[in-house]
Formats: sequence, C-alpha cells, structure tokens
Amino acid sequence: MDLATLSQGLDTIWVVLTAAMILLMEGGFALLEAGFVRQKNAVSIIMKVFVDIAFGALVFYFIGFGLMYGKDAFGIIGTNGFLMTGDLSHISLNISHDTYWLFQCAFVIAVISIVSGAVAERIHFRAYILYAIAMTALIYPMAGHWVWAVGGWLGKLGMIDFAGSAVIHALGGFSALAAAIFIGPRIGKFSADGKSNIVPPSNLPLASVGAFILWFGWFGFNSGSTLSATNGSIGHIAVTTMLAASAGGATCILFTMFRYKKADPPMVINGSLAGLVGITAGCSFVSDGVAIIIGAVCGIAMVLATEFLESKRIDDPVGAFAVHGVSGSLGAIAVGLFAEPQLTQGIGQGYYGLFYGGGWNLLGVQVLGLVVISIWGFALTWGALWLIKRVMPVRVSKDEELVGLDVGIHGVPAYNQEHDFLDLEKLKINQK
Amino acid sequence: MDLATLSQGLDTIWVVLTAAMILLMEGGFALLEAGFVRQKNAVSIIMKVFVDIAFGALVFYFIGFGLMYGKDAFGIIGTNGFLMTGDLSHISLNISHDTYWLFQCAFVIAVISIVSGAVAERIHFRAYILYAIAMTALIYPMAGHWVWAVGGWLGKLGMIDFAGSAVIHALGGFSALAAAIFIGPRIGKFSADGKSNIVPPSNLPLASVGAFILWFGWFGFNSGSTLSATNGSIGHIAVTTMLAASAGGATCILFTMFRYKKADPPMVINGSLAGLVGITAGCSFVSDGVAIIIGAVCGIAMVLATEFLESKRIDDPVGAFAVHGVSGSLGAIAVGLFAEPQLTQGIGQGYYGLFYGGGWNLLGVQVLGLVVISIWGFALTWGALWLIKRVMPVRVSKDEELVGLDVGIHGVPAYNQEHDFLDLEKLKINQK
Amino acid sequence: MDLATLSQGLDTIWVVLTAAMILLMEGGFALLEAGFVRQKNAVSIIMKVFVDIAFGALVFYFIGFGLMYGKDAFGIIGTNGFLMTGDLSHISLNISHDTYWLFQCAFVIAVISIVSGAVAERIHFRAYILYAIAMTALIYPMAGHWVWAVGGWLGKLGMIDFAGSAVIHALGGFSALAAAIFIGPRIGKFSADGKSNIVPPSNLPLASVGAFILWFGWFGFNSGSTLSATNGSIGHIAVTTMLAASAGGATCILFTMFRYKKADPPMVINGSLAGLVGITAGCSFVSDGVAIIIGAVCGIAMVLATEFLESKRIDDPVGAFAVHGVSGSLGAIAVGLFAEPQLTQGIGQGYYGLFYGGGWNLLGVQVLGLVVISIWGFALTWGALWLIKRVMPVRVSKDEELVGLDVGIHGVPAYNQEHDFLDLEKLKINQK
Repeated sequence: MDLATLSQGLDTIWVVLTAAMILLMEGGFALLEAGFVRQKNAVSIIMKVFVDIAFGALVFYFIGFGLMYGKDAFGIIGTNGFLMTGDLSHISLNISHDTYWLFQCAFVIAVISIVSGAVAERIHFRAYILYAIAMTALIYPMAGHWVWAVGGWLGKLGMIDFAGSAVIHALGGFSALAAAIFIGPRIGKFSADGKSNIVPPSNLPLASVGAFILWFGWFGFNSGSTLSATNGSIGHIAVTTMLAASAGGATCILFTMFRYKKADPPMVINGSLAGLVGITAGCSFVSDGVAIIIGAVCGIAMVLATEFLESKRIDDPVGAFAVHGVSGSLGAIAVGLFAEPQLTQGIGQGYYGLFYGGGWNLLGVQVLGLVVISIWGFALTWGALWLIKRVMPVRVSKDEELVGLDVGIHGVPAYNQEHDFLDLEKLKINQK
Repeated sequence: MDLATLSQGLDTIWVVLTAAMILLMEGGFALLEAGFVRQKNAVSIIMKVFVDIAFGALVFYFIGFGLMYGKDAFGIIGTNGFLMTGDLSHISLNISHDTYWLFQCAFVIAVISIVSGAVAERIHFRAYILYAIAMTALIYPMAGHWVWAVGGWLGKLGMIDFAGSAVIHALGGFSALAAAIFIGPRIGKFSADGKSNIVPPSNLPLASVGAFILWFGWFGFNSGSTLSATNGSIGHIAVTTMLAASAGGATCILFTMFRYKKADPPMVINGSLAGLVGITAGCSFVSDGVAIIIGAVCGIAMVLATEFLESKRIDDPVGAFAVHGVSGSLGAIAVGLFAEPQLTQGIGQGYYGLFYGGGWNLLGVQVLGLVVISIWGFALTWGALWLIKRVMPVRVSKDEELVGLDVGIHGVPAYNQEHDFLDLEKLKINQK
Repeated sequence: MDLATLSQGLDTIWVVLTAAMILLMEGGFALLEAGFVRQKNAVSIIMKVFVDIAFGALVFYFIGFGLMYGKDAFGIIGTNGFLMTGDLSHISLNISHDTYWLFQCAFVIAVISIVSGAVAERIHFRAYILYAIAMTALIYPMAGHWVWAVGGWLGKLGMIDFAGSAVIHALGGFSALAAAIFIGPRIGKFSADGKSNIVPPSNLPLASVGAFILWFGWFGFNSGSTLSATNGSIGHIAVTTMLAASAGGATCILFTMFRYKKADPPMVINGSLAGLVGITAGCSFVSDGVAIIIGAVCGIAMVLATEFLESKRIDDPVGAFAVHGVSGSLGAIAVGLFAEPQLTQGIGQGYYGLFYGGGWNLLGVQVLGLVVISIWGFALTWGALWLIKRVMPVRVSKDEELVGLDVGIHGVPAYNQEHDFLDLEKLKINQK
C-alpha cells in the first residue's frame, strides 16, 4: 500500500458515496412532486422521475457525457468520450473516468428532474421521454461544457459556479419556465375572471420528507463537487450549505407568518430548497455569514416569484422556476458579489467578488454566463417541445387530464383503498 | 500528497458524511411523528421539525456552539466561538472547526426534535419556535458543555457518554416529559372516568420507515462520534449499535405478543429506537453481549414506561419520554456497570464499570451526571414554557385543536383527495 | 499516523458506510412491499421487515455467521465464530472481524426480506418468525459458505458471484417461490374460471420511493463488496450498477408501452430492481455495454416471468421471484458468458467467460452453482415451512385474511383517517 493508491481510494469512495447521495435525490424529487400534485397524478409524476433516472443515465452515457466533457472544439462542445471511449486524458483527476462519469450522471438526472415538476399533471408521457432525451443528450451537456469542461468558453472567461447554481439550477429552472408556458396551465387552475385557484397538495408529509432527502443529498452535491477528499474546503462547503438551507427555511417560516398569517407548509418546504439552490454556486467561495444572507434572500425571493408567476397565469405546479430558476440566478450572481477565493483551495484562485476588491470583472462574467445559460435553456426547451409537437401530442387529452394521468395514461391509481381486487372495466368507465 | 493531508481528508469526509446521516434523521423524525399523530396534525408536526432544523442550526451557529464548546469558564459554560469566531485552539482535532460544528449542529437538532413529539397536536407554533430557540441556544449547549467540552465539570469528574445517551436523549426525554406535563393532555385523550383513549396513528407505514431512517442515521450518530476514521473502535461501535437496536425490536415483538397477544406495531417501532438510544452512551465501551442486554432491557422498559405515563394521565403522543428519557437514562447507567475501556481507543481509558472491577466510582459519576442533566432539562424546559406563556399562548385554542393544527394553524390539510381545487372558504367554515 | 493505520481506517469507514446503506434497504423493502400490497395488510408486511432486521441480526450473530464464515469443514459448513468468538484468523482482511460481520449481517437481512414479499397478505406472523430464523441461521449461511467462505466447495470449483446474484438473490428468489407455492394464493386472487384478478397496489408513491432507496443502497451492496476502498474497481462497479438499473427501468418503460399500451408503474419499479439484481454477480467482471444488456434482458425477463407465474396460478404479491429469482439466475449465468477479469483487481483473476475465450469452464461452474443454490433454497424453504406447519398454522385464518392482517393479527390499521380516538370494540366487531 502506498500513498498514491490510498489517496486514489480515498477520493474514489468520496465521489462514489456522494454520487449515490445525489442519485438518492431522485427519491426526494419523486416524493416532493408526488406530494405537491393532486392525488390523481401522483404516480404519473413519479414515472417521469423514473424516465429521468433510466433514460437520463443511458443517454448521458451514449451521447451527453461526450458532448459535455469530450475534447473541446471551439470552446462550445465536446467531441469524444461517447460510451466512455476514446482519449479522455484531458480530464486529469485523481479518480477514474468511470467514477467521474457517475458523479456527472447524477447531476444531469437532477437537471431533468427539475423540469419534470413544471409540466406535472398535463404533459404526455411519450413526449416527456423525448424531451428528457433532448435535455440529457444536448441541452444540459452543451451548457455544462461552456462552464465546466476544459476549454469551455465561459470557464475560460472566468465564470465560476462551484456545484451548479447556474449550470444545473438556472438552466433547469428556465427550461421549466419555458415548458410551463409552452404547455399551458392545468384546466381550472385559472378561472375566466383571472382568479388563481389553489391546488390541494395531495400529500404534504411525503413532500416534506422529499425535501429532507434532497437536503441530505445536497451535502453530496456540494461537498462532493470537490471531487477530492483532501480538498481543504469540504467542511466549509458543508457548513455554508447547511446555513443557507436553514436560513431559507427559517426566513420562509417568518415571512409567510407575516405575509399570510400562517407558516405556510409548501412555502417552507420550497424555502429550504431555495436556500440550497442559492448556495450551490458559492458554497466554497463565500463566508458563513454570506451563506445565511443568500439563503434568506432566496427564501423570500422564492415566495415572491411564486406569487408573480401566479399573477402572470403561468402554472408551475411544484414551483420549479421559483425554486431553481430564481435562486439559481441569485446564487450565480452572489458569487460575483461575495467571492472570497482564499476560502477555498485550488479553485477560482485570483477571482474576487465586487465586495471583496475584485471590481466588476467577476460579476460581469457571472451575469453574462447566467444570461446565456438561462436563454439557452429557455430557447432550446421551447424548440424541443415545438419539434416534439410536430410528431405527437405534447399534452394529454382533456379527458385524460380530468380523470388524472395515473388512470388516464398509466392505468392505475396511485392510492387504492379497496380491500379486494381491481375492477379494470370499472376503471375504464371511470376514465371516460 | 502527504500522510497528514490524507489523514485530515479521511477524517473530514468521515465526519461530513456521518453528520449528513444524522441530519437525515430529521426526515426520520418527521415521518415517525407524522405517522404516529392523527391525520389532522400530520403537517403541523412536520413544520416543527422544519423549525428544529432551520432555527436550530442558526441559533446554534450564533449562540449555542459558543456556550457549548467555547473556552470554558468555571466548568459550566463556554465563553467564545459565537459565529465560529475567536480563538478555538482548545478544540484540538484532526478536522476543521467548521466540520466539527456541522457534526455538533446535527446533534442539537436531534435534541429539540425529541421534544417536538411530546407536544404534538396541541402546542402553538409560535410558542414552539421560542422554545426551540431556548433549547438550542442554552439548555442543551450548557448541559453538553459539562460533559463534552474541554473543562466541563462532569467530564472532569469522569462522566463518559460516548454519543449522548444522557447528554442528548435523557436531556431531550426529560425535557419532553416536562413539556408534556406543562401543556397537558390532548382533548379527549383521557376520559373523565380515568380511561385512557387510544389515538389512531394516522400512517404506520410512514412511521415505520421513519424508524428505518433513524436506524440508518444512528450509525452516523454513534460511529461518527469517534470524529476520526482511524479510531479503531468504529467497527465495534457499529456492531453494538446494530445488536442493541435488533435486540430492542426483537424483545418488543416477543414482549407485546406475550403481553397484548399481538406484536404491537407502534411498540415494535419504538422498541428498536429504545435499543438505539440505550446503546448510545456505551457503544464503544461495552461488549456485544452487553449491547444485546441493553437493547432488550430498553425495549421492555419502553413498553412499561409508556403504560406508566398513560396510567399517570401524562400524554406523550409519540412516546418521546419512554423512548429517549428512559432508555437514555438506562444507557448512561449501563456504562457505569459494564464499561470495559480496553474495547475502545483513546477515550475513557482507566474507567471501568462496576462489573469490571471499577468499583462504584464510574457508576456514581454516571448517576450524578444523569440526575443533574435530567433535572436541568426538566426544570429549564418548564421554566422556558412558563416564560413563553407570559407573552403568548403556549397551547392552541380548543377550536384549533379540534379541527386539527394543520388546517387550524397552517391552513392546509396534510392529505387531500380532492381531484380539483381547494375551496378556501369551505376550509374556513370547516375550521369553525 | 502511519500508512497501515490510515489504510485500515479508510477500509473500515468504507465498509461501515456501505453496510449502513445496505441496512437502509430494509426501509426500501418496507416501502416497496407496503406500497404493493393492499391497504389492509400494509403494516403486517412491514412488521415482517422488522422481524428480518431484528431477529435476523441476532440469529446471524449467534449462529449464522459461524456456519457461514467459521473454519471450514468438508467444504460445506463453518464450524466456529459463533457469537464472534474463536479463532477467525482464516478471515484475513484489512478490516476488523466486527466490521466484516456488520456487512455480512446486512446481506443476510436482505435475503430474508426477499422472501417476506412472496408470502405477504396471508402468512401467519409467528410462523414467519420461525421461518426467518431458519433462513438466517442455516439456509443462507450454508449456501453462502459454499461460494464465499475460505474452503467452500463452489468457490473452490471457481464459481464467482461478486455481490450475490446467486447467493443472495437466486437463493432468496427460489425460496420465495417455494414459500409462495407452499402457502397458496391469496383468497380471490384467482377466480374459479382461472382468471387472475388484479390486486390494487395500495400506495404506489411509497413503492416507488422504496425502489429509489433500494437503488441507493445497491451502490453500497455492490461497491461495498470490494471490502476495501483501494480496490481499483469501485468506480467501475458503481457505473455498471447504475447502467444496469437504468437499462432495466428504461426497457420496462418501453416494453410495457409496447405490450400493455401504457408504461406500467409496478413493472417499471420492478424492472429497475431486476436490472440491479442482474448486475450484482458481474458488476466488477463485465463491461459497461454488457451491463446495459444484462439490465435490459432482466427487465424484460421480469415482465415475462411475472406473467408466467400468474398463468400458473402462483401468487407472488410483490414479484419476489420474478425480480430476484429470475434476474439473479440470469446474472449468475451472465458472468459465465461475459466475465473479463482484467476489469477488476485481485478477484477472479484467470477466469474468463465463454465469449472472452474462457471456454465452457466458468459457465459450467456458474450454472452448477446456480442450480445447487436454487434447489437448496427451494427445498429447505419448503422443508422449513412443512416443519413449522406441524406445530402451528403457517397461514392466517380465512377471517383474518379477509379483514386483513393489520387488524386481524396486529390489531391496528395501517392508515387511520379518524380525527378522534380509536374505538377498539368497533374494531373487534369489524374484525369478525
């Protein structure tokens, strides 16, 4: 046993364990979304998470990883590494390329899962599969290449996004926004008189535990992004992650008590997640105090963004844009304001935020990158859905929507209280 | 890469990963409590867990950590380290102070979550926030200082409590008892003729999986308390933890089959947890066989304690005192009887339990510490609630309690089977 | 701090953390099974999982571990190591025997949990406890000894089964088949005219998240089986595990869309698990591409096997045989076809599958081992249940089955919507 072998083993288990934690977040997404939608659509939204993790991993293996991390061409795209073959020597890490792939795979699955919530209760299942392929093959890998790959043009400009407030969450959030607008609101969500109706979340305990699982996975997401166990900032990253999440949750408790005269459970759930999203870019670059501020601001911004979308009659059933799009944007910008690279090791050295003597440089590139990535996500999602609509319905029929996608598309209700056996004939009649 | 860096990296990921596991226990607490209470209060109890993890972390960051682990004054309190600033060189570890804080933060959140179960279905949300602040700022940090901080008076006397049967569980359990008595039983729990009525647990599958998540987290709780991956007792700790939990569960299965003529699901769930609580103090100091005995005794004691509280008309909805107070006490005392410090490394050397030639010394100090900590928790919880009651109601109104705290306080039911949209007006009427 | 200590610490936390992940799979099994069965049996099936983890661990500690990993006699059985005592120096690892026991204990609990699903909704609780003891004391430990222990006859013949497609899953699956046949179908499952009736799964969101938790735990299961963090194949194992699971899920989505005109949620859930089971034997020996093929084949085979059992009027409520028996068998055989030992380190060197120049040798021994283990599991399970039936009923009464085992055997329903208190008298009347 020598030091190098030990060091590789240490880094390997660190990345494998944190990748597994990130993949467990799919369970969190499933619970969160199934809990927030109506009971008649609770299985259909979980089936989309299965699409994310099943198709997402395969497509990223065959295509996405190569476009994202293959040998750079023109700063905009990777050109090899499909099926993990070819010369990947430009990826120089203390872990195997296999291990690296697994971690990145967990990321791409998270991105597409963000979008799944925004189209809940009305997107057609087959159309969703095609869209998920587009996202995991192309939309996310290209954006990710620009920031994270060796030679990516945004990375070369100096954009820093530690674990992906912009690359993961703003991209996912703006894609979710495009999808929600493209597909239109659920039947009955907005009355003719402009009134927004409240959807009863079918199962708030499940949604809550989904948030706790996501919170757990986020330690893997952020701390694991060091890709090395001997990176001296792991502890700091875990602490800023924790503080921002807590600040997001605490702020939403207080803010909704003030604004709605009650601590609003769905807002508190999403507030914690907003704090986590917000700190994702800067977790290793900002101080504890700044992490608390980021979390708090993201919590409040999430509430206001949710109200804003409602007022614009945009129907985003689980708040995907308010949580991921808004807080992801705020998080990416916060790095430009608050980065103190001496807090971390080996990453982002030499870049300082506006408030720490770095001038407008870093802030400028962060905003530029954020705008490019957000527009990219919005536009390509719109384009992908537009193309899919040429060949198949993107939205379920009115009948299927009214009866619910569980019975309407998947042929089985999420919850059954029958003590005996299912009468499929009856189910079909109910479905009409 | 040198040995020291590698060693620090190894210890860091060990503590960060185990801290994340302990924080996931909040998801376990949420499920356990939501499953045990009535459906009309399932979200309200989870909102309290959000208070624990959100306010708990922030308060511990600003105040609690300093009082607990800051530079000692008179053996009773810490005096610096607030906001993780100041000279913390007396905490000499192979991990960063950041990393250490995260682990300790996960502990304090567990303590307050213990209490949340005992006041379920009737405490007012605002009052609970204030109490949670008192617990995480002061009550737990001071007690923890006495045993675990450099210079704490109980630690100097020789009290050993590896992962907190006394410091965490007995403190939390006796605080829970005080709170349950202070706030009084739920309406209808005890009939005028003295009969105790059975509350239907709303969702036993959720409660069960809550227990499995807690069991998982406990490996982080106990093994992680080594704070070092090269502590040679990690394997032993994990095994005693497992055996005690299994013994607690198995004993409760058999004991309730004998006593109630059926294996009682809530008792089996709590029996496993009782075994885990009981082994928490001694996990590194007792043998496998003793671990099984501790687990078995704690399982039975939990059943009897639950019956005893019922007979005394004390209403502890999820059995917080029976699980944490009683088993925590038994676990702390067991160390005084069975400690074999040769089993561990570097901790507790020179201390032997009564049955291993140590005489009455260790047992005496364990009992002293336990009594002090239990009284402290009970008294300060009572005092805190008494003070809070001066400024706001500690208990919800009778109407709110009858309609349930979910709709009464948080404005939304936990479970909704409606296929369309919520009628808030109807909800308000139902609430009356 | 020296290299050896560091190396031991690293391996220890790797094994303890992955063991904890495997033990969390019990939460996954509980959710999966509770979600698949009818609501009236949701707690009873979870209580069986408690039996698995509580009795399983204790019995394996007292008896099973010794029979499995004790000093070999005649290649068929271990002879010491009961209560972790005696000379275990033939187990030569970089981790303590304690740590090794915990990992193996997590495995045995998984095996018995496989069987629990097949006898759901009708086995008597006391009989199940006895059967669980038989499995964890004898049936699994002996089969495991043959393949994995130093001196076991199948291992000496050259059988390789990395993390247990045969030893865990085929054994568990064929035991499940025997138990399902022995105990007979649920009342009403098959009509007199031969029609198979559909059982409404009570809670598909819970079943789904059960699958996600199992998926997470499987990274511990497969990668952790290296028992060493410096084994260079950990990354590769994690990737093949991921790809096979995704392929199983994706294939089942497409295959059921083609075959049933809808993506069938229970099949998709089980398809992912089938992929995981199938890759368990070969995760470190086969290439990525082969892993995808294994996952895809196992997914389809699971659907067909489910249909086949239905057509044979064998009632396996959660598909335990179709998932574990069939995919476990395919996985064990796949090693004989596709093994490329250069992919791994230190294990199975010199063995090549049929398609990689190894001839029929390895394939032959894999098939032999699989057949022996499957027959062993089937026969001893049948024998154990036959013996148990001599002394007590193996199946609940017709009344208990109709009212459901939750109220019938455990005296409490899984889900309660009552807002007040349980009327036990009424419950007893309903029970009649």
